[in-house]
Amino acid sequence: MGEQRAERADAARNRRAILRAAEELLRRHAPDEVSIERIAAAAGVGKGTVFHRFGSRVGLMRALMEERVRTFGEAVAGGPPPLGPGAPSRDRLVAFLDAVVVLAARNGRLITAHDHALATRRHAEGRLTENPVYLSWHAHVMSLVAEARPDLDADLVAHVLVGSLHNEGVARLLLAGETERVAAGMRAMAESLLR
Amino acid sequence: MGEQRAERADAARNRRAILRAAEELLRRHAPDEVSIERIAAAAGVGKGTVFHRFGSRVGLMRALMEERVRTFGEAVAGGPPPLGPGAPSRDRLVAFLDAVVVLAARNGRLITAHDHALATRRHAEGRLTENPVYLSWHAHVMSLVAEARPDLDADLVAHVLVGSLHNEGVARLLLAGETERVAAGMRAMAESLLR
Repeated sequence: MGEQRAERADAARNRRAILRAAEELLRRHAPDEVSIERIAAAAGVGKGTVFHRFGSRVGLMRALMEERVRTFGEAVAGGPPPLGPGAPSRDRLVAFLDAVVVLAARNGRLITAHDHALATRRHAEGRLTENPVYLSWHAHVMSLVAEARPDLDADLVAHVLVGSLHNEGVARLLLAGETERVAAGMRAMAESLLR
Repeated sequence: MGEQRAERADAARNRRAILRAAEELLRRHAPDEVSIERIAAAAGVGKGTVFHRFGSRVGLMRALMEERVRTFGEAVAGGPPPLGPGAPSRDRLVAFLDAVVVLAARNGRLITAHDHALATRRHAEGRLTENPVYLSWHAHVMSLVAEARPDLDADLVAHVLVGSLHNEGVARLLLAGETERVAAGMRAMAESLLR
């Protein structure tokens, strides 16, 4: 029993070390340059351990993105204001857009790949496919817009704002490193909309 | 020579008759129900003539969409105000969004198919692909926003507004027939942004 627990603790520690190593490497290098070998070396584990924990490079990237999205969701739901509860809707919306633009910029390539997978499935199934992250962000923005501007169509405005992170033109600016500019522009739009 | 000219006139007349028949059928039926046979019958030509003029059903749909986009572009560039030149930027933007939402609603399935083709090419080429219609609409909206609100990032705002027609949530509303609602919501957003 003690041995099994030790093994599980070991597995969890390896998993965390691998995610942290991947995150650190991705901060400094293009995704194409971040191989499993480099991640394993930086985490101090064997390449086999990475595959054992995440299945594939894609699986590791997905786990990293899911972790970031989860951490972000926790900050929105229960973290300090203005991102978390307690600030006026308009301030919360601005804080949300700021944070989500940074998140999108850091995960640009992952998001593009994910969008493409969804678009392909949607095309194959002949219908629009739900993206759970999109839906939760949309619900949050919709509730803030509804509070601040009950006269607007909050559902539609939320689609326009959250959806803009997936749009070609904005994605192009984020991939070009214009994170600050996109964040400032989105902030100005949100302030104009909610004033 | 007279005979060749007559043939060319015949071809042009057939082309127009086929496009008008397709347009009329698509106004009243779902695209899946509009077969080449039906279009040919409604246009008073043989099925072979449709294939000869447009290559395939997809080719005919693309020609129809291109024709609509071209007509719309002419109205924006030189038609009567407020869609055309001569009205204040804010009125022109509202008129543009109204018209473009109707256009997107009428061409929803064509646009989805086109977006998917672009996304696939982009994924294959590992880069974002330019869509000429998107670029021309973006340039128009950008110039109107820049005139009305020089303090905003007109480039970004134009991406958010024009890109929203391609976004999942808005596409879903348009496919559900909520054209009026999308148009009203976009109008309210534009008015808030440009006031």
